[in-house]
This record gives sequence, C-alpha cells and structure tokens, in this order.
Amino acid sequence: MAKDYNVAVVGATGLVGQEFLKLVLERGFPIKELRLLASNRSAGRRVTVGEWDLEVEETNSKSFAGVDIAFFSATTEVSKQIIPAAVKAGAVVIDDSAAWRMEPDVPLVVPEVNADDLEGHKGTISIPNCPTTPLVHTLWPLHTANPIKRIIVDTYQSVSGHGAKAVQELTDQTRAVLDGNSATAHVFPHQIAFSLLPHVDVFLGSGYTKEEWKIINETKKIMHEPDLAISATCVRVPVYVGHCEAVHVEFSHPITPEDVQTILRDTPGVTIQDEPSVNLYPTPRGVVGKDDTFVGRIRQDASHPMGIALWIASDNLRKGAALNAIQIAEELVARRLI
Amino acid sequence: MAKDYNVAVVGATGLVGQEFLKLVLERGFPIKELRLLASNRSAGRRVTVGEWDLEVEETNSKSFAGVDIAFFSATTEVSKQIIPAAVKAGAVVIDDSAAWRMEPDVPLVVPEVNADDLEGHKGTISIPNCPTTPLVHTLWPLHTANPIKRIIVDTYQSVSGHGAKAVQELTDQTRAVLDGNSATAHVFPHQIAFSLLPHVDVFLGSGYTKEEWKIINETKKIMHEPDLAISATCVRVPVYVGHCEAVHVEFSHPITPEDVQTILRDTPGVTIQDEPSVNLYPTPRGVVGKDDTFVGRIRQDASHPMGIALWIASDNLRKGAALNAIQIAEELVARRLI
Repeated sequence: MAKDYNVAVVGATGLVGQEFLKLVLERGFPIKELRLLASNRSAGRRVTVGEWDLEVEETNSKSFAGVDIAFFSATTEVSKQIIPAAVKAGAVVIDDSAAWRMEPDVPLVVPEVNADDLEGHKGTISIPNCPTTPLVHTLWPLHTANPIKRIIVDTYQSVSGHGAKAVQELTDQTRAVLDGNSATAHVFPHQIAFSLLPHVDVFLGSGYTKEEWKIINETKKIMHEPDLAISATCVRVPVYVGHCEAVHVEFSHPITPEDVQTILRDTPGVTIQDEPSVNLYPTPRGVVGKDDTFVGRIRQDASHPMGIALWIASDNLRKGAALNAIQIAEELVARRLI
Repeated sequence: MAKDYNVAVVGATGLVGQEFLKLVLERGFPIKELRLLASNRSAGRRVTVGEWDLEVEETNSKSFAGVDIAFFSATTEVSKQIIPAAVKAGAVVIDDSAAWRMEPDVPLVVPEVNADDLEGHKGTISIPNCPTTPLVHTLWPLHTANPIKRIIVDTYQSVSGHGAKAVQELTDQTRAVLDGNSATAHVFPHQIAFSLLPHVDVFLGSGYTKEEWKIINETKKIMHEPDLAISATCVRVPVYVGHCEAVHVEFSHPITPEDVQTILRDTPGVTIQDEPSVNLYPTPRGVVGKDDTFVGRIRQDASHPMGIALWIASDNLRKGAALNAIQIAEELVARRLI
C-alpha cells in the first residue's frame, strides 16, 4: 500500500504557497496531514484546501514534528533560519528561496534535467529561481544532443515573481495612471505601471543584479557545467503572471531550427508554440495557469553560424516555483528517497 | 542672411508628426511656411503650431510645389507612392518609413554616426527604424574605438511605435482587465495589456520578423559594416512611450565598463544613467519627452572575455523618429545641402 505523507507548507498564504496547495489537489499528491505555516501576520487565518478547512499556524522551529515533507516558499531569511530545524526534526525540505541553492551538498533540481541529483540528498533540496527553471528545462535536451557553448538570455519577468504586494502595486499604479493621477512606488524602486525596470533583486558589485547571477550560477550547477558561458539581463515588466525570456544559444556543432523542434517535441513538459503564420508564439497571458514550459520563435541565430535564437514563456508560479517543487516531491516518492 | 524654408509634414496628425511639430518650435527650425499633410480622413482638421493655425490638407503628388523640405511619417505605402513626386517637385524628403531605407542611393542617417552620408543625396533621405537609432547612436563611438564583432539585442518596444490606435488599444484593454472584463484585440494580434508579444511587424520566412531584420540590416548600413554579426528579438510591451534594449556586444580587443563610460560620456546626445547604488538606470518612463539616448547597466559581459552588456532607453517618438529627422534637416542646412 502506498504511503501517505504529512506535508507542511511554509508561506502557505503567499502566491507560490497558494499555487502549491492548488497543485497538491490537482495532482492528487498522497497527503495524510497538511499543515499550513506562515508568518505571525497570517497566523490564525483559515484556508480551505479541497475538503480540509485549516488554520494557518505561525512558523517556528517546533512546527515540523512528524512532518515528512516541508515545502518552503518564504523569505531567504526564514529559509536560512528555520530549515535546519525542520531537517533535524526529520522533514525533507523543498526550498524555493535562494538560501541554500548554491550549497554543494544541496541538490538544486529541475526533475526533467537532473532528478538523479536527488539521490543521496541530506534533507534539503532547492528549486531554482523562477527564470532559471524554464531555461534549463528547454536547453538541457538540446545540450545533451549538441553541447552548448554560450547562452545569452534577456528576461521579461512578471510582478508576481516579487509576491502579492507587487501584484497589488501594479494594479494600484495602473489605476492611478489611467485616472490621471501620479503613481506611488512602494514595492519597486520606480513606477512599474506602463514602464519597466532593468532591475530584479539587488545590485552586486559587478554591475550585475543578484537575479542575473542566480540565472548564471544556477544554470551551471543544474547542468553540471561549471564553465558554461552565460550572460543575462533581468527586467521586470508590467505583467501580472508569466515570465518570458529571449534566448540566444551557441552550440558546438551545426544545428537547425528543425533539429531543435525535433528534440523539444519529445521533451516532457515542453510545448512548442511556433507558427508565425497564425501568430502563434508564447505570451505571458497564454501560459498563466499552465504547467508546461512554452517555446517558440525558434530560428537560426543571424549572428552566429552555430547559433539558435528562441523565446521561452512559463507560469512563474507553476513551473517556475510550485509545480517544480511538487514534481520534486513526486520524484522523491517514486525513488523511495523519502 | 540665413534662409527660411518651406516645410511640409506628411502624417502631421500622427504621433510622430505631432512630435515633429513640437520639435520644430522647440528647436527654432527656420521655417517660412509650414504645410500640414495627412490622409483624407484627417484633411480639414485645424492644428495649432506655435503662432500658426493651420488646416490639414490631403496629401497628393501636387502637395509639394514650392516645398524645400518634406518630412514623411506615414505608411510605407504612402512613402513609396508619394515621395518620388515630392522629390521631382524639388523637395528634399526625410522619410521615417521603411520604404526607401535600404536603397543604395538613399542615405540612412543618424547624424551623430554618419552625417557624411548626406553628402551627394539625391533628394530622399531615410531615418532608421525606432530601435535602430539609439542602438547605433550608442555603439558607433565604441566601434570606432574598438571594432565590434557581434551584437545581440533584445528589445522592449512601447505601443506608440505602432501609432495612435495602438496607444488607445493599450488603454482600452487595460481598463477592461481592471474592470474584470475581457479585453479585445484589434490592433495587435493578441492582448497587449498586462502581457507582451515577441512579435513586431510581420513575420518573414526565416522565422525573424521584419522589425528584427530592420535592426540587423539598418545597423550594418549605417555603420558601413555589411558583415557585422547581429541578432535581435523584438518584443512589444505594455508601455506607452519609450523603447528599451538589452544589448550584448563583443569587441575585437579587451574593453572595460570604464572604457565604455569614458567614451559615451563624450558622445553628443548620449546620457549615461548608471548608478546601481541609487537605483539609477534608464526606464521608459524616465525618457519620455527627452531628446537623448540613455545608457546604463554597463558591465563586463559574463559570457565573453571581450564582451560588454548594457541597457539602452530612448523616447521612440523623439530620437527614435521625429528628433532624428529634424537633426538631419539641421545638418542639411549646416552643410548647405539644401
């Protein structure tokens, strides 16, 4: 008889936590008991998940007694502080924050790419930053067929990647502008409504942002290619949900758009939307609520003889976060690693 | 005594035409008589330009008698049909459309880059497509110091680049979405409000759009580098005015961000906005109504030893269109080419 699991969701009232709870039901993950955890601001709130009517509890180091799997989608600080206690209490943690991703003994996993890295995990498993996941999901099968030498990616990231307050700010500012009033910025450093910011997460000394380094370093770690050449510019756009990426890839050997289509057509979780004649290509609006990574605009890169240009879109709350996490949990169950 | 000129503006009621009329006043271009031309839909409308109260006339091949300079910002079809007659009538035409840009005997000019190409013009001068102008404006002085080998550019283009109806569509759709209604797409093939489209102008057989080929081919022509390697992905974003570009450049020799700053600091018409510590970088909202090309996020490209990544923003109606056109007219006057 298959085992059922005690599952805790930290950050249960956040955008990604809510998406995780939807996916738990959609996918029928085998749950015995579900525990919803959040900050003390949200503690006491009641949340309905399918047939369960649950009270949100405040997260602390004692929250994990008897928990088999804990999904964390809170701040990096919460993940840093609380996860060691959760692991000590016996939970396997799947963490959505940047806190542990680059630790050598923490697997950083996109199941379609490097599920084998889950073997021998030590209790903490990280999921990548939201733009990294669809990028490696798309590029990995191409890389195994024809080694990638260089990746340039420029992103178009929706405000939901920054959380619920950012979503509210886009709405508030948009209304203000349409009403002819001035828009006030609280969450983002400048107005995001009808504008955009080449600035996601904090700036580092190199002139790159932390978000850009996450794409660079996480891609190298997941693909086991520490010397891969990657550059990224991360841009926040006035879109609610759905991250997009313009990608330019150099391969080791000649490759055609048809080769890419053939490989991606057989890649689980990837959907090709690439029919220019009927204006079919991925858009943020088109991927909301969808599980797959969508790829289009596949063409020979005009600037390089072995280059391919393409365009990726995915629901940043799903494949970019909650879906990837639950897929890892499913993989742990299937491999009896939990 | 300096001469004053008879100036005709074709497309006078369009977004770029209106911006041109503002600039004529702002810059004190020496005008004797101003003639406003448009399609028959707009004919008869009265437009105030400074002290002039003018009636818009329908454009036809007889509209150019006595005209010294004609600025065209209409459709490619109008430019194709009408410009030969305007030139025959003795006007020097500065055309904002794609109709004549790639003709070998038509100078395609950004004055800060290739004003010398105006010498020996045959009556028709083209200005580049709106994302091309700030790109070459920024890269040309770098190229003369350290030859560029490859350019990758991904754009974030505002709806005003598509004209007044596109601006209205963004407003209408945005209101609809905020009110919980469905948004109807008339101008763009899909909803643009709170979404974006990797699709500007029509698709070509290569999988590239015409807009992307314009950037590629026009950059090569303006920089006199027919073999330069360039790739582009052009994306329409839900922004009213202001085009942005994420750019990755490979040079022939080592180059640092400081080298780039030093060169661009001395480049007329370029303003550097690059102080991450105070969240200073170019944004669409920050460049509306400004003349300059704004450059920021200047950093060593992490994927190439002689690479630089940077971020460009400019008002697509100004430097991307009307301003560049009037600068050409000023250059023609200064060089006595008119």
